[in-house]
Amino acid sequence: MTGPRYTRLVQSLPASVPFTGPETLERNAGRAFRARLGANENGFGPSPRAIAAMQEAAAGAWMYGDPENHDLRAALAAHHGCGPENIMVGEGIDGLLGYLVRLLIEPGDAVVTSDGAYPTFTFHVLGFGGALHKVPYLGNHEDPAALIARAAETGAKLVYIANPDNPMASHHPASTIAAMVEAVPDGCLMILDEAYIDLAPTGTAPDIDPADPRVIRMRTFSKGYGLAGARVGYAIGAAPLIAAFNKIRNHFGMCRTSQIGALAALTDQGWSAHVRAEVARSRSRLAAIATENGLIALPSATNFVTIDCGADGVFARRVLAGLIERGIFARMPFVPPHDRCIRISCGPDAEMVAVAEALPPALAAACTG
Amino acid sequence: MTGPRYTRLVQSLPASVPFTGPETLERNAGRAFRARLGANENGFGPSPRAIAAMQEAAAGAWMYGDPENHDLRAALAAHHGCGPENIMVGEGIDGLLGYLVRLLIEPGDAVVTSDGAYPTFTFHVLGFGGALHKVPYLGNHEDPAALIARAAETGAKLVYIANPDNPMASHHPASTIAAMVEAVPDGCLMILDEAYIDLAPTGTAPDIDPADPRVIRMRTFSKGYGLAGARVGYAIGAAPLIAAFNKIRNHFGMCRTSQIGALAALTDQGWSAHVRAEVARSRSRLAAIATENGLIALPSATNFVTIDCGADGVFARRVLAGLIERGIFARMPFVPPHDRCIRISCGPDAEMVAVAEALPPALAAACTG
Repeated sequence: MTGPRYTRLVQSLPASVPFTGPETLERNAGRAFRARLGANENGFGPSPRAIAAMQEAAAGAWMYGDPENHDLRAALAAHHGCGPENIMVGEGIDGLLGYLVRLLIEPGDAVVTSDGAYPTFTFHVLGFGGALHKVPYLGNHEDPAALIARAAETGAKLVYIANPDNPMASHHPASTIAAMVEAVPDGCLMILDEAYIDLAPTGTAPDIDPADPRVIRMRTFSKGYGLAGARVGYAIGAAPLIAAFNKIRNHFGMCRTSQIGALAALTDQGWSAHVRAEVARSRSRLAAIATENGLIALPSATNFVTIDCGADGVFARRVLAGLIERGIFARMPFVPPHDRCIRISCGPDAEMVAVAEALPPALAAACTG
Repeated sequence: MTGPRYTRLVQSLPASVPFTGPETLERNAGRAFRARLGANENGFGPSPRAIAAMQEAAAGAWMYGDPENHDLRAALAAHHGCGPENIMVGEGIDGLLGYLVRLLIEPGDAVVTSDGAYPTFTFHVLGFGGALHKVPYLGNHEDPAALIARAAETGAKLVYIANPDNPMASHHPASTIAAMVEAVPDGCLMILDEAYIDLAPTGTAPDIDPADPRVIRMRTFSKGYGLAGARVGYAIGAAPLIAAFNKIRNHFGMCRTSQIGALAALTDQGWSAHVRAEVARSRSRLAAIATENGLIALPSATNFVTIDCGADGVFARRVLAGLIERGIFARMPFVPPHDRCIRISCGPDAEMVAVAEALPPALAAACTG
């Protein structure tokens, strides 16, 4: 008896995983991390109102969530000044990116992104057989003009940009992104991943007509709202594109408790302001720690700080390994020249103290290693 | 400017939805249901231990869930006497079916199921362009011999059977399913959907070597464990097939709270026994209500009772509409001849009283309608 017959595409795919979770590292090391600062989770936590709503909803977990995500979509539409027909809720931005790629990409279709940008998007593109074209960053910024030029050149169906950017923490002002939308080639869809927008400076989010067929924005409750584990992302876009998700999505894929928690979090903008202030404080603290250790903290528009270790990828990997050994879960960019950096998430004071304590010996070990 | 360029397959797909949720019906009607008995949810609720664990986990929702689902897979492996490499956890059976179809089916590939069987499986097969071949039920049972014969005839890559069955509530004994596995044609994978197995009579689940490459079993926390809203399903199968999911799945797709809730539920088999007893009592109550109203309750191996209304689909649809008007959320099979039936989920006493009160006037209205 033979095994299952996979598609040709699946046979060609590696068994890759975009990210290794901290739990895996903890199991391998046989001990828990002292500071969980590698996945840009929000250690300041979700709104107490969201926690209370989820606790109250726990006993009702026997009910499926509303497959239309009606209440959450209505609240998001009011929040963004658009219609619910412009909002699609899904299992995190990761889930929505998977659906979006599936809607547009068949084997060989061109997709443009930046070299070193979000690996889960790349994972989905390759998973549907897309032909990936990668544009270099311009310094520490994604390069809108180069992305658009490559999209035009390759006849791409999708062009991806994150603003603010991960892993470099940089951002473009709203006007640059708005100009990029205007330049999107005919028949190409721009994905504007705004996972970190809630933590960015005022003036980072452009004013885009939600009915504009050239762009789809991705937002999430994972970062600013502190609900990464609840898996609630949403897309804002033109109604026909939003409706197309219904052709393929897992209609009953959303957790009921997550729908309820996200709705409660959205109503607590006071907590969001508190989180923004705490994140700003933590960013400054991380920058100071970097400086004290002779390293360069890059400007950050996110809830993490990318720290230039001042040498090459080999050295930065040593620094990162030293931090992990010392109980600090952090990560680093995958590709040169960004891999001269490490990336540390913002977090509460105790975690910052842990970083301040672990970085000097990690650096010393990296220098002598 | 044109809109996005969808794949040819997506362009050909209807904007169908496998099921309308009760919340949509409630919004349309402008009032809440008195009894929520249409989606085979488990109104007896999850284990109090699971509720407590999820409440305690709510504040930690800022952390992503473990992408390996390590702890839950380890516990499930111990529970089933297999290795964690034989277990894949996913966003409900619905999510896992979508991944499985994606792994195997390219446009035109043959897939065999029963006419009237689980529509979400059909949705996924059509969503990946599979050529669907439907075999009629044999009375109220899926027909293993006919499914296997059709799979052989069409060179199918997948053949689907649910045991116990939804929507007919029937079941085959373990020996019949074991014989079906032995008869699976070379190169075909059998999907054994056991969503309702926790509520079936002893002797319904066959003993299958988890390393057998001919079959993949689907299980869920949605039915017996009362955690439908937490979206936790799992597959049991040969290690290479389980590993293949890692090529395409949404690695961070699971809610952290759901992982924790499912793990706690699994440890509380006392609660599961309590639920089984309550479901059995409710099944008898629903059967008695049917009999009192001159209808025939089909034997049930599930947490719902399929009731033959004694006429055709037009009549059963009228009865169902009458129930819905009277505040009872129920559903019915989609295709003839099963659509002579309505389908009512088991539930607590108050819900059974509501059904007992609503059915006579619903029937009377259907007769005169």
